[in-house]
Amino acid sequence: MVLTRENCEALDGADTLAGFRHRFDLPVGKIYLDGNSLGAPPIAARQRVDRAFAQWRNDLNASWWKHGWLDLPRQLGDKLARIVGANSGEVIVADSTSVNLFKLLLGATQLRHDRRVILTDAGNFPGDLYVAQGIAQAQQRKLRIVPAKELIESIDRDTAVVMLSQVDFRSGQLTELKPVVARAHAMGALVLVDLAHSAGVLPLRLSDDGVDLAVGCGYKFLNGGPGAPAFLYVAKPLLESFANPIWGWIGHRDAFAFESEYRPAPSIASFQVGCPPLLSLIALDAGVDLVLEADLQAVRRKSAALTGAFIDSVSPQCAANRIEIVTPFESHRRGSHVSLRHPQASRLADGLADHGVIAEFRAPDLVRFGFAPLYISFRDLWGATEILKRVLREIEAPRRAHAPAGLVTDIAQRSGP
Amino acid sequence: MVLTRENCEALDGADTLAGFRHRFDLPVGKIYLDGNSLGAPPIAARQRVDRAFAQWRNDLNASWWKHGWLDLPRQLGDKLARIVGANSGEVIVADSTSVNLFKLLLGATQLRHDRRVILTDAGNFPGDLYVAQGIAQAQQRKLRIVPAKELIESIDRDTAVVMLSQVDFRSGQLTELKPVVARAHAMGALVLVDLAHSAGVLPLRLSDDGVDLAVGCGYKFLNGGPGAPAFLYVAKPLLESFANPIWGWIGHRDAFAFESEYRPAPSIASFQVGCPPLLSLIALDAGVDLVLEADLQAVRRKSAALTGAFIDSVSPQCAANRIEIVTPFESHRRGSHVSLRHPQASRLADGLADHGVIAEFRAPDLVRFGFAPLYISFRDLWGATEILKRVLREIEAPRRAHAPAGLVTDIAQRSGP
Repeated sequence: MVLTRENCEALDGADTLAGFRHRFDLPVGKIYLDGNSLGAPPIAARQRVDRAFAQWRNDLNASWWKHGWLDLPRQLGDKLARIVGANSGEVIVADSTSVNLFKLLLGATQLRHDRRVILTDAGNFPGDLYVAQGIAQAQQRKLRIVPAKELIESIDRDTAVVMLSQVDFRSGQLTELKPVVARAHAMGALVLVDLAHSAGVLPLRLSDDGVDLAVGCGYKFLNGGPGAPAFLYVAKPLLESFANPIWGWIGHRDAFAFESEYRPAPSIASFQVGCPPLLSLIALDAGVDLVLEADLQAVRRKSAALTGAFIDSVSPQCAANRIEIVTPFESHRRGSHVSLRHPQASRLADGLADHGVIAEFRAPDLVRFGFAPLYISFRDLWGATEILKRVLREIEAPRRAHAPAGLVTDIAQRSGP
Repeated sequence: MVLTRENCEALDGADTLAGFRHRFDLPVGKIYLDGNSLGAPPIAARQRVDRAFAQWRNDLNASWWKHGWLDLPRQLGDKLARIVGANSGEVIVADSTSVNLFKLLLGATQLRHDRRVILTDAGNFPGDLYVAQGIAQAQQRKLRIVPAKELIESIDRDTAVVMLSQVDFRSGQLTELKPVVARAHAMGALVLVDLAHSAGVLPLRLSDDGVDLAVGCGYKFLNGGPGAPAFLYVAKPLLESFANPIWGWIGHRDAFAFESEYRPAPSIASFQVGCPPLLSLIALDAGVDLVLEADLQAVRRKSAALTGAFIDSVSPQCAANRIEIVTPFESHRRGSHVSLRHPQASRLADGLADHGVIAEFRAPDLVRFGFAPLYISFRDLWGATEILKRVLREIEAPRRAHAPAGLVTDIAQRSGP
């Protein structure tokens, strides 16, 4: 597709998801392509938080029961189960993504205590690697980190758990889960997936794919608000044998009986620990409801169209502008962001921001362009590509004025740190 | 003191903290004596959350830096350090109380890995016991639970860590920390204190008392909002040797460098794990600021006066009404709530609520009356005691109509489940 303003306006006119844009409170004069870091505010989030303040004022502590606050992590979990293709009772909202990963990964190593290896790939999110490094050290396991393309073949009978991000936070590469699960289960290993960059923007099928365990983030494509509570998934067949290693008050079978012995809830509720941060939880509920309302197949199609058109538009400019597109060109192999490598990535992101295009610099040399189909239009896409061209010209112009591009690139490469 | 409306109004007139009441958004027609479960909403909390929504909308992901969101857990930690008598850099806001307890207790057992026993008292909060039970099982330690009055003498050279709540959530009994620390340190054990029912309502001196580790709750006397993030304290001398066992992204020395190896922040910041739930965190900031503004010595004096007058007023009615006051009568031995034991405690709490007095039933037979000095007046106290008398009359009247009290009590006791 040739990107023109007219083309894009026509695509917006035919977009069945276009109405969702008006459900978000978006700033004027910005094209926000960082919704994969922090989703934009749903208008309903503020309304619900306002209502929660009124409940807090009027009913105070009784609100936990009267207004269903205490049950919200489980209710939200059931909503999220529909979004990630799981069954009711397999998902709960609790803590942060990292704390949830800690609970599930430690639990997994305990369930496979006779196996030595936690296996993951080098592209996994560093925070996930840190959690695994800590557990590996404490449990005297080996954390084996292999290139992503060698992940499946590296699963063997010493693998306790395979841990991966479904969408690579840098490259946007989407990993098909079924083959990972097939090999892992054949070898007796568990599979733990981080859905941070996939939940809410892809039609997931955790149950069908046979995924054992997963964690996900509330504040990216679920638009749950800054630092929104995270969620976790435990496949039903595992629930009976798999225990939360953090024995928490709210995960007790009967928290308000104040028994002196821990008896975990006989359900996913046992993966809660303490009281949930209610104001943040209520905002997440609004974000999740919006995603639930949308047809995720349509979201996926629009995501593929936006990222695909962006790639098409950037491709011809790569050679002359020292850009490398690190995201897969085939739409079924990528999530909903596109990453460009550039030797002055930080300057590129700053330049874009100066012109109102919010993309994100990821050290050392990437700029990520996230396309949240619920509020990003094709017109936004067109605007972003126009501004990208302009900023690249600004960055490259002084170089070109002084020397042929090839020579400068050569010099830059040799003089780098 | 004889409680009369006139007396109470005079006390309110002389109360230097009286102005704080107007900083809270309190419901009309209720006397809220459950602020030790969930503090009342500070008016500023809603304003700050509104502002955070505007920041989220206008600056989106950049808000983490532009509006200091990312640094807030540490800034709030420094504010809390002043409230709990610690040094700057010893306190951070993160996660829930239970998750923080998990981090510190697991860390403590690892630091004292040659010792077998986690010691605590039977009155400790069940949620704290659960965390300890889980760690004891996983680490093959012994969790030794002794009566509170035997805690100090039970500390020996096999004790890795002594864990206690400074104020007992049931009885309100306040434990003096210095003697616990003295014996623990003499024996080489660490002391971990839960400040849930003391932070914000007592002038604490963690540093002076030599406390090693502590956790605290944001949503009780700190009025941080439902499920507000919690905090933790690690004494400076321990910080170098003591590691957070959950190696988290936000606890990394340079989270946004996305290094593949975990290198903990060289500070209390390493006790963070994931992204903080910002909307809840912002509300907590408002609650903490209110406490910081108040003179905690004055808060303590008012707390002692309110709880003392309540005890004085209830004492003469105990015998005739099957009430037992389980809270210590000496003001220096109690926190800021008073608990009454009654065979029909649940009915008593319901009856009080019907008349607008919000106290809390704690299974099986207690009603807790929490006095938050920043927004509870002596007039509230007077109203609550009047209504308590009336509800007790309502509960006792049918019994008295049928038989002498002694006989009915006797029958009730024998026919209980």
